[in-house]
Order: sequence, then structure tokens, then C-alpha cells
Amino acid sequence: MNLARIARLLAGFVLFFSLVQAVPLTFALLEPAGKFAAIDGFLGSMGLGAVVAALLWLAGAGAAPDFRRREALAVVAFAWLLAGVLGGIPFVWSGALPSAVDAIFESVSGLTTTGASVLGAKSTPAIEDLPRSILFWRALLQFVGGLGVVLIFIILLPAMGVTGKNLLASEQTGVNTEVSEPRMVDQSRGLFRCYVVLNVACMASLWLAGMPVFDAICHAFATIATGGFSTRNLSVGAYQSAPIDVICTMFMFCAGCNFAWFVAIARDPTGSGRLLRAPEFQCFFGMVVGGILVTTLSLWLSGAKLPDIEGLRDYGDWWRCLRDAAFNVTSMFTSTGFASADFQNWPSLALAILVLGMLCGSCTGSTAGGIKMLRIAVCAKLIAYHARRFVRPKSVERLKLGGDVVADPVVSAVLAIVVLWIALVGFGTLAFALDHRLDLQSCFTCAASLMGNSGPGLTSVLADENGLQIANAGRINLGPYGSFGDVHAIVKAWGSLQMLLGRLEILTLLVVISPGFWRR
Amino acid sequence: MNLARIARLLAGFVLFFSLVQAVPLTFALLEPAGKFAAIDGFLGSMGLGAVVAALLWLAGAGAAPDFRRREALAVVAFAWLLAGVLGGIPFVWSGALPSAVDAIFESVSGLTTTGASVLGAKSTPAIEDLPRSILFWRALLQFVGGLGVVLIFIILLPAMGVTGKNLLASEQTGVNTEVSEPRMVDQSRGLFRCYVVLNVACMASLWLAGMPVFDAICHAFATIATGGFSTRNLSVGAYQSAPIDVICTMFMFCAGCNFAWFVAIARDPTGSGRLLRAPEFQCFFGMVVGGILVTTLSLWLSGAKLPDIEGLRDYGDWWRCLRDAAFNVTSMFTSTGFASADFQNWPSLALAILVLGMLCGSCTGSTAGGIKMLRIAVCAKLIAYHARRFVRPKSVERLKLGGDVVADPVVSAVLAIVVLWIALVGFGTLAFALDHRLDLQSCFTCAASLMGNSGPGLTSVLADENGLQIANAGRINLGPYGSFGDVHAIVKAWGSLQMLLGRLEILTLLVVISPGFWRR
Repeated sequence: MNLARIARLLAGFVLFFSLVQAVPLTFALLEPAGKFAAIDGFLGSMGLGAVVAALLWLAGAGAAPDFRRREALAVVAFAWLLAGVLGGIPFVWSGALPSAVDAIFESVSGLTTTGASVLGAKSTPAIEDLPRSILFWRALLQFVGGLGVVLIFIILLPAMGVTGKNLLASEQTGVNTEVSEPRMVDQSRGLFRCYVVLNVACMASLWLAGMPVFDAICHAFATIATGGFSTRNLSVGAYQSAPIDVICTMFMFCAGCNFAWFVAIARDPTGSGRLLRAPEFQCFFGMVVGGILVTTLSLWLSGAKLPDIEGLRDYGDWWRCLRDAAFNVTSMFTSTGFASADFQNWPSLALAILVLGMLCGSCTGSTAGGIKMLRIAVCAKLIAYHARRFVRPKSVERLKLGGDVVADPVVSAVLAIVVLWIALVGFGTLAFALDHRLDLQSCFTCAASLMGNSGPGLTSVLADENGLQIANAGRINLGPYGSFGDVHAIVKAWGSLQMLLGRLEILTLLVVISPGFWRR
Repeated sequence: MNLARIARLLAGFVLFFSLVQAVPLTFALLEPAGKFAAIDGFLGSMGLGAVVAALLWLAGAGAAPDFRRREALAVVAFAWLLAGVLGGIPFVWSGALPSAVDAIFESVSGLTTTGASVLGAKSTPAIEDLPRSILFWRALLQFVGGLGVVLIFIILLPAMGVTGKNLLASEQTGVNTEVSEPRMVDQSRGLFRCYVVLNVACMASLWLAGMPVFDAICHAFATIATGGFSTRNLSVGAYQSAPIDVICTMFMFCAGCNFAWFVAIARDPTGSGRLLRAPEFQCFFGMVVGGILVTTLSLWLSGAKLPDIEGLRDYGDWWRCLRDAAFNVTSMFTSTGFASADFQNWPSLALAILVLGMLCGSCTGSTAGGIKMLRIAVCAKLIAYHARRFVRPKSVERLKLGGDVVADPVVSAVLAIVVLWIALVGFGTLAFALDHRLDLQSCFTCAASLMGNSGPGLTSVLADENGLQIANAGRINLGPYGSFGDVHAIVKAWGSLQMLLGRLEILTLLVVISPGFWRR
């Protein structure tokens, strides 16, 4: 293990991460002094970052150039862990979130593009009470996290032979132990450009739809990174604007697609038809559209006036049903976590679709979380294969996806990750249940939501005589308009770890923190 | 496909199933006439059974003797489907459950040893209002179903090369396409004897502990079959007796073990030490004991007086915590479904353990349902293997369980079943959510409970200011003291199918109802 090289690379990353804070620092210098010491927070944080970077640089003196699979895993895992801690410093030192656990939770939530927030609880300030500099820092954490995920899982790890995520993308099936650096740089540049273009397009559209410029930038960062941090207490629901809802829905869907597809389409637009026929895209499209239709129907059939952010909302109107269903279902499938309605009050069928979205997620190579459509597709194929084999045990066939044969070890690895994912959601449910003020449904949905980097959970709400859910009695609300702020610190610490596990596809983090990894 | 031979075998089964009803008919003849026409019900049902048997017998004229894998699957699936329908006839024709959907749900619930009941709802009579003959029929359905499961999954299907369930039991690894009939008969006799001895022992113990003879018989049938139908409205909780709780707990645990182990121990008691070291037993024992300890602690730390069947129950008393935790956790892990407390009111952590039990289940070759410990163990081994391989992709090792190598196709089949199981619980959640009066937690837990043949679900209850759960507001209660009676008929129909899918390890039923199965 080339520890020196790891330290040098992390030093570079930490320095970059500190320099990035110059942007929110500029905001802080321009805005009037308020309740929170934002300037102190960012200056202190940048100073600390510089010190950490220097120490890591010194620790890496005399690094040999070799860099392989295990070094790559260690760099990725430590980069996220370090950024999670350092990203929380501005929150603590500005006084916005004095508790370290809160600050780290918020920072990890941004970097993992989860979007679960501790703000807005009894013990924490409301989102709209924070200065723009800190709101922008929250948005920027998502931008950095989203870009990092795309670069690492589409380029770095496949090049290192860690094919975990893109194991079926035709360009990356061969395990390249020899890393062609020019090619990697070229690919990275294409992805970066594509990421920035999507952000700018989203920002411009939101601004044209009437959102203030600052809000548009922050919401674009949150949308393309599928993060979900808003600058408003009521998330996107605060704008009460159909065009904004539609624009967000469309860009969230794009952010749930593999970014390598956009790069390929940008290079050769004639090939876009072929990409639309990719099994993963079809699976994603089918599930999201199906989910929206079922949810719309469920809301419309309930025909109810459900309690929402601005009084009762009338779901007798089919357009309102479709608009809310499209926005919030897409938000859950792409693990964004934006909300345009207090969907905890929706009928059970709609809730079940939202939870399904949290668990399944979007495409590999996107900024979204969840189990991922490719893995779902492999599971479905395997089940169909075993059902046929159950009838005719002697029949031999190979598992195919979109015309490509999927090798047995790949199938086995995919299944192991899926089962581990579900097991960690189960374990997370037990961990959340340590706070006895959380009901079982909150525990399960929050575990699924943080694991899948979605954000909100679904707290169980009361039902009146007709079975309609009407209110939340004395429970901690962890739903779209709730907050993780009042939850017990141990649960928040576990939640931070769970977001990181979900973001790094579990194994990347899990093996690095296991002793066996560090043995020769 | 030898349809004639299938018909002949089913004719024999239906005849047997009709003759069995002579026992409750005797009860009906001896008891005073009441609200329900039990005599008519059983006579009519026996008559109908005889006609169906005769028709099947005629349809099977000239059957060739060959009987292979596919014929075996068809017989098993149709036997359960036919018994599910015919077993409901006495409920309908006695007037106890006039609705066919209700009657079939109750009958399937007994035969699959689930123990979920439609009785005790607004639209159905209470359990204690039914005559003894019908109560005995409910108990007998479980006895028959439990025996059937053990015989089929330990003997018939492995002999037919369907190694789905006992795929790792050392005696049955070789795929025997040649069926040695004398050996099968011998094995069946041993299992039958063991099943009867356990039933008699349980019955005698319950009777000695003070239960009336009739109740003791019915509860013994429900315990050893891990069914869970009680003769009392409040299940075993009605007796308020510590000895009865302890006896039930012990026998439920036994019923969760592989019955082949009991046969082996009866033949060679010196080998019992070896069986205690079986990985599946250790996994089962560890999870149940761990689950009981966590639940006890969770109840005791809550220290609360929780609402229960007879007013508030004081969980400040550690013995009460341990007794209730041991009984109800064992009941859920073994998929029995008995209740000695209204555990819906328990803290979230305890509830999460109960749901874990519903999903995981017990050992293969037992009368219990759920995913099964052997499959859980295989999943755990596979995950550990892939974590090691993730670090060192070139390392080659074989997956071992208790010293035996598990072949790759077996691992793949196990994983496919586990994922399919979870997918069906997810689908079941959506299906239950079609009834908008059910909350999301009820939908999910009922889907898990019926799939795992446990019985009760967990309906979300209200919380007061301190987060303590206190009551159920206007929702349909599907918990241990609730009833499926008031749920929408479509949901009950799906529930019946889901119990059958869970009982027959999904594929046995799924492939038989797929068109591909019937093609040459």
C-alpha cells in the first residue's frame, strides 16, 4: 500500500476543497453582517483546510508513483470522509450549527447529494434564517459531491479495475489494469463540461421561469447533483409555480441518467436512438412513468382535500394530481429529495411508490443514489432465469441484458450488493429505532432514504374516521417538511455513515475501514 | 406431462381431505345446536369433496405410471390450491363466513400455517362465538398443512430433484432422479411419527399447565404447525399464565427447527451434539436469542406502562419484559403468529425486531415460513466473500457453509429466491395499499407477514407528547388483536395468493401457474 501517494493525493484534494470556499466567502464579505459569523466560519475553515493539506503533503514526502486499485479505493473513501468533516467546519464556526454532529450531518448530506437537513428543527435555525453565504455553501457541497461521484464512478474506479458500478457499460467491461492517463483526462473533461452545461441550462430555465438568480443557482446545483437542499423552508413548494415544478422534474430526470450517455450524445447525436434503447434507460423510464401514473391515479381517486403547506390542497383536480405526482415521484426515484407537497399526507399507495423510488433509484453513472436500475434489471433477469431453470433444470442458457452476456461472477457481485443494501436498510431501521420518539415507519423510510441518498423520510401521520391521514401527533417529523435536527446524536452519526455508505456503493467505504484492507 | 397421473393423485388427496372432516363433523354432532349450521357445513363439504375426488379419479383413467419433477410440482401446487378452496366450504355452508373470499382466506391461512384470521372484525363473528367443531376445523387445517409442508419439502421434492429447500442438507445434495420408494416411505413414517409426538407432547404440557383439553389440542396443533390460530379472541394472551407462555415459547422454537434433525436425533441421540453445531441451527438460535434480548431491553428501558389487552401493562418489571419478549419474538421468528401482548404498542426498536423475525423466519425443513436461516447464512457468506474479492480481485476461494462447499449455481438460486421474496413483499405492499384505509406500515408489515406465513401485521398507532404510542385512530387494525375481515375483498384475495406463494417457496406455485410450464 503506497500510503505516501495516498497522502499526497488527499493533500491536493483538501487544498482544492479549501479554495472552493473562497466563493461562499466572497458572498459573506458582500452581505450585511447578521446573526451568524459567516466570514469567520469560512476563513477559519479555509485556514484549517490549508493546514490539513500541508500536513498531508508533508506526510506524503518521497511518494513512489505507483497507484493501483487499493490506493484508488483508499483515496476515494478518505476524500469523502475528510470532506464530510471539513465541510462541516463553516457551519460550526459561523455559529449556524454549533453542534459538530449536526454540522457533519449537514455537510455529509450535501456531499453525498442526499439533501436531508438538520435545519428547521426546534434546536436549529430555519433555512431562511441563514445568510446567503452559508446557503450557497450548502448548494456548493452538492455541486462538488455530484461532480465527484460522476468522475469517480464513471472514470477513476473502472480504470482501476473496480467495475462495481459500470460493470455493464460496454466501454468499460474490460478490466483495464493499465491506466491510460490521456484518455482519462479527456473523458473527465467531457463529463465536466456536460455537468456544467446541465447546471447552467437548469439555472437559466429556473431563472426564466421566475426564480430569483441566487435561488436559481442554488436549486440548479441541487437538481443536477440530485441533492435536494433548497434555499427555502418549503423547498420548491415555496414557489407555487407550475413552470418551476415542470422544469425541476425534467432536469431531475436528466440527472438520474448516466452522464456518460450525455457525453456520447454530445459527441455523436445520431447515436442517441441507440442509447434510448439501452435496457437501463428503458427500465428507468418505465419505472418513473409507471410510478407517476399510479401516484396520480391514487391521488385523484382519493379525490381528497389533503392538508398541505398552504392549507388544504384539492386532489379532485387531475392536473394538480399529475403535477404533484410527477414532481415528487421523480424527486424520489432520482433521490433528489425536493418536495412540492407535504406528501406524508398522501394515500398509502402513493407513499408505497415513493418508498419504491427511494430504494430503486436511477441509472448507474448518474448523480443519483439507490440500488440502481441496472442492478434491478440484473435481478429481474436472474429471477426469470431461475424460474425457467426450476421447470427444466437441465436447460443451459446465459444471462443476457440488452444483447450482452452478463458473466456469472458479475451477476453474483450485483446480487451481493443488492442484498447487502437491503440488509443495511434493515440495520439502519434498528439504528434509527434507538431514538424511541421515532415511529417504525419513520425508522424504515429514513434508513432507506439516507442509504439511497434521497433525503426525506415518511413519518406516519394520524388518520381520521375515514382513514384519511390528517396530522402528526407529538412525533418527530422526518418527512419532506421535517428535520433531522431533533433526532438523537447517535442516530445522526449513524445517518451520516449510512449516507456515505450509500454514496460510495457500500463496498468502497466498507472495505477501506476493515482491517483486512490494510494488511499486505 | 402426465396429466392423468396428476389427476389420480389429486383425487386421492381430495378424498383424504374430505375424510379428515369426519373429525370436526363428530364434534358438530355432539355439540348443542347453535347459531351456525356446522353439521350441514361439514356434511356438504365432505359430499362436495367426494364428488371432486370422483371426477378427478375418472379424469385420470388410464394413467401411465411415470411421475417426474414437473408432475410432482403440479401435484403439490394443485393440492394446496384445491385444499385452500375446499377447506373454506365448511365456513361458508355453516354460515360462519358467508363470503367466499373470507372463507378461502381463513382456510388458506390455516393450510399455509399462517394464522391470519378474518374473524373478529365488524362484519365477521368473534372467534369465541364459533362452535367447537369449526374451531377444531381451523386447528386441523394447520395440522394438515404443517405435516404436508414437512413431508413435501423434506422428502417429496428433494427426491424429485427439486432441491430448492434442502439444498444443503447433506443427505439430499445428490439429485436423485431415481426415486427409491421404500426409502421415501420409511423417511415419511419417521417424520410423521416425530410430528405426532411433538403435537402430543405440546398438548400434554399445555393441559398440565392448566389449559382445558380442547384448547390444549387446538393450541398444540397451532404451535407445532407454527400456524397461530387460537380458540380465544385474545390468543394465548387470554390465559394470562406464565407456564403456558413458557411452554408455547419452547415448542414454537422446536417447530422452527428442521424436523429431519428430530428424526435423526430420535434414531441416534449421540449425534445431537453434531446437529447443534449445524450452521443453520446456530444462526437460528443466535438470531432468536439476540432478538429476545434486544426486545427485552427495549421494553425495559422504555419502562413504560403500555396499553394492552387488560388495561395498562407495566414494563418496568424485567420479568414481564423478558416473558413477553421471549413469547412474541419467538412467535414472529417461527412465523407462528400467537400473541401474548398487544405488541403494536411496543417501542419502535422492539417492533423492528418483530418485523425482522417475520422476514427471516426459521430453519428449512420446519413448519415455519419466512426467507429461512439457511438462505440468510448463504447471503451473509456471499457478501463477506465479495467484500474480500473487492479488495483482492484475483483471490479465488470457494463459498463454504459449515465445512461444506456450496456450489455456485446453488448460491445463485438462493440469492434469486431471496430477492424475489423481497420483491414480492414490495409488490404485496402496493397491493395492500389499494385499500386506502390501511396505513403504509400496515401494508408493508402485512405483506411481509403473509409472505412469511406469520399472521399479524403491525398497524401504526398514535403517539402522545412523549412519543409513546397510545391508540389507533379510525384505522383498520391488522395487528395481533386485529382482523383481516374488514379489508377489501381484492386485498384478501391477493393475501390468500401471497400466503400460498410464501408457503410453497414461491417458485413451486409460480412456475405451475405460468404457461411455459405446460408446454412440452
